[in-house]
Amino acid sequence: MRPVVTFLSDFGLQDEFVGVCHGVIARTCPEAHVIHLTHGIPAQAVGVGSRILAAAIPYVPAGVHLAIVDPGVGSERRAVALRTADGRCFVGPDNGLLIPAAELCGGVVEAVHVTNQDYMLKPISPTFHGRDVFSPAAGHLASGVPLASLGDAVDLATLARPRAPAHRLEGTVLHSEIEHVDHFGNVRLGVSTAELNGLFRPGATVEIHGGHDRYFARCARTFAEVERGAFILHEDSSGYLSVAINRGSAGQLLTAAPGELLQVEFEPEPPGLEDAGWPA
Amino acid sequence: MRPVVTFLSDFGLQDEFVGVCHGVIARTCPEAHVIHLTHGIPAQAVGVGSRILAAAIPYVPAGVHLAIVDPGVGSERRAVALRTADGRCFVGPDNGLLIPAAELCGGVVEAVHVTNQDYMLKPISPTFHGRDVFSPAAGHLASGVPLASLGDAVDLATLARPRAPAHRLEGTVLHSEIEHVDHFGNVRLGVSTAELNGLFRPGATVEIHGGHDRYFARCARTFAEVERGAFILHEDSSGYLSVAINRGSAGQLLTAAPGELLQVEFEPEPPGLEDAGWPA
Amino acid sequence: MRPVVTFLSDFGLQDEFVGVCHGVIARTCPEAHVIHLTHGIPAQAVGVGSRILAAAIPYVPAGVHLAIVDPGVGSERRAVALRTADGRCFVGPDNGLLIPAAELCGGVVEAVHVTNQDYMLKPISPTFHGRDVFSPAAGHLASGVPLASLGDAVDLATLARPRAPAHRLEGTVLHSEIEHVDHFGNVRLGVSTAELNGLFRPGATVEIHGGHDRYFARCARTFAEVERGAFILHEDSSGYLSVAINRGSAGQLLTAAPGELLQVEFEPEPPGLEDAGWPA
Repeated sequence: MRPVVTFLSDFGLQDEFVGVCHGVIARTCPEAHVIHLTHGIPAQAVGVGSRILAAAIPYVPAGVHLAIVDPGVGSERRAVALRTADGRCFVGPDNGLLIPAAELCGGVVEAVHVTNQDYMLKPISPTFHGRDVFSPAAGHLASGVPLASLGDAVDLATLARPRAPAHRLEGTVLHSEIEHVDHFGNVRLGVSTAELNGLFRPGATVEIHGGHDRYFARCARTFAEVERGAFILHEDSSGYLSVAINRGSAGQLLTAAPGELLQVEFEPEPPGLEDAGWPA
Repeated sequence: MRPVVTFLSDFGLQDEFVGVCHGVIARTCPEAHVIHLTHGIPAQAVGVGSRILAAAIPYVPAGVHLAIVDPGVGSERRAVALRTADGRCFVGPDNGLLIPAAELCGGVVEAVHVTNQDYMLKPISPTFHGRDVFSPAAGHLASGVPLASLGDAVDLATLARPRAPAHRLEGTVLHSEIEHVDHFGNVRLGVSTAELNGLFRPGATVEIHGGHDRYFARCARTFAEVERGAFILHEDSSGYLSVAINRGSAGQLLTAAPGELLQVEFEPEPPGLEDAGWPA
Repeated sequence: MRPVVTFLSDFGLQDEFVGVCHGVIARTCPEAHVIHLTHGIPAQAVGVGSRILAAAIPYVPAGVHLAIVDPGVGSERRAVALRTADGRCFVGPDNGLLIPAAELCGGVVEAVHVTNQDYMLKPISPTFHGRDVFSPAAGHLASGVPLASLGDAVDLATLARPRAPAHRLEGTVLHSEIEHVDHFGNVRLGVSTAELNGLFRPGATVEIHGGHDRYFARCARTFAEVERGAFILHEDSSGYLSVAINRGSAGQLLTAAPGELLQVEFEPEPPGLEDAGWPA
């Protein structure tokens, strides 16, 4: 079986960066099957990258998982390689990018600081460790080099962790940071329905404050439950609360950008009979 | 020989959607060779997707052809898998997307409604059948699972068909919907030269009404037949009538968008001698 | 070992062009490992393409290197295939695109004008030689067809060469054409630090005139040497002088576009003690 290397980054596709890293992997491990997860992570958005990697990882073959969103390249941040309880390897900067995905794989059981120059390209560019440090490390791991050969062991407690998107629930009102706006204009809030104390009830109506206006949305499972052009609030395919428009772009209408706040006002829970103030 | 899976969608490349589907195919059929046709179909543009798939299919190896442009995901539209007379398989939503390509492969000879949950990922997300239904189906077909195992047979007459782009010829004036504006700004009209009753004559001049102005264009075979910055009207590499500018972008100058109307005024046919009103 | 075909173009990824060429290569040479270097070269920008190909080539496996940026498609420009001293093959238009990369591979030792129609798809579209001429040629070379079979030998002295980006040094002031603005907004000037007569001194401050303003930048090796939002002038990972902003986009702030001029004013060299006018 060909070893699998998955690759995620914020490199974009207009330059040669992704192709060069793919080339380096292919030179280091010619039989590797490289699967590009995405290279469209917003530039230097470590948190978004960490959650998109975690959304993808349950669906890809086990292998070496290379991820590079690295605003600290050339600074003192460490390059790390991790092994998880289920036997996968992760390679990338020690800035939290790899952690949520690794936790879905049983958690990190071994980590090394990638310092062994025998497994790097030289000279090492101070601004493109993707090419000279991370891709060779991923290729060597895919070729069977043991993790411990890449550098010194790292105390797992010292690994950096990513910042979670902020949200706050005040009674029936959710204030949430916008986590991500996807290609279809779906606005992911970075909070799961489980965290909403039962306020998310399919069929209920909510009020969304965003852009310069207020909109009504229906809590639903699928786009088709509302008319064309209408809003839905739903749990997306990765389990996050998300605002969408059937056959339209919620992101465009709400002029929503990652990091901004969106407010969702849920209906108060329908009163039970005993609370209704009606004569029994 | 590695089985080939080609993959076309409107997923774009900034999110993890394409990588996740590639991962699912690779888990289902590790030896598959995945060829990405494009993931840049305009969001939910089934018609454009159907014609771009048909433009590509004659040039790719026979295999399993996965295509997902699926505005009806989560509604009652069927997921289908088709076999064509030449032995290829197509997988995608039953909304017409697959049909023009399948017709170039000898036509559909067998179709199933993909309902067998043994060949799906679970739980099935109501908004991402690409991941949970279509990609596993494509992977299983590539692995040798028979088409009939994926679900119940479908009456071929009930398969949805795509809408063709509208055009109308009034004398020497063509009114045509813009089908697609490509990366180079070439404006495809979605009508073939064969449908123009001989009005398209290389070397002739036409008048194009688009944007807020009128432009002269030359009927030509190649961009190099006109000066830099000049318009040509030509048959593109897929056989469609197309408006282009040598080393420029016709789409930008015409502010052309898919679905809008463009008007092309051809020269009346040069009179034969007998019609010229000259003394014989 | 699978033969490698690398592929670079200005086709973009929204249309089927790249997928169709990949399909043609896979039909011609089913075992080929296709590595996409980038398809984001600005449309018809032969010079940019030539330098990005040269930046990538030292990092990719030896094989067949297909590159298509071809504003002259359909004109008299030749389709060529080249062999370099280190045994690699290059395929593309004879407009200079391939030359800088080929020179990094020991230089061109054999060249043919691709004219043998046995190795093309027919009919040959006058506007898409990528599909009908270049991709089949690359696939056949990867399959082991000898270079000389593709067409007639070309006198190496007649191969077109690319235009280098313009720059001029007047005392301590550099006037340079902007070569490229990458995905992160780094502005590459297309001049190497070696060409600056020692003016580039890490730690020194320079003044950049661009956009509608002047900015101070620090000559540095890494982004982290300056504060967030501050400019650096550095040697990029391909050896070019480049203007960047730590965690920001220099291209956006400078409203820089390829082909425009940028002015960099270096500090005059610090006077030696003997020149300082101080008493010894």
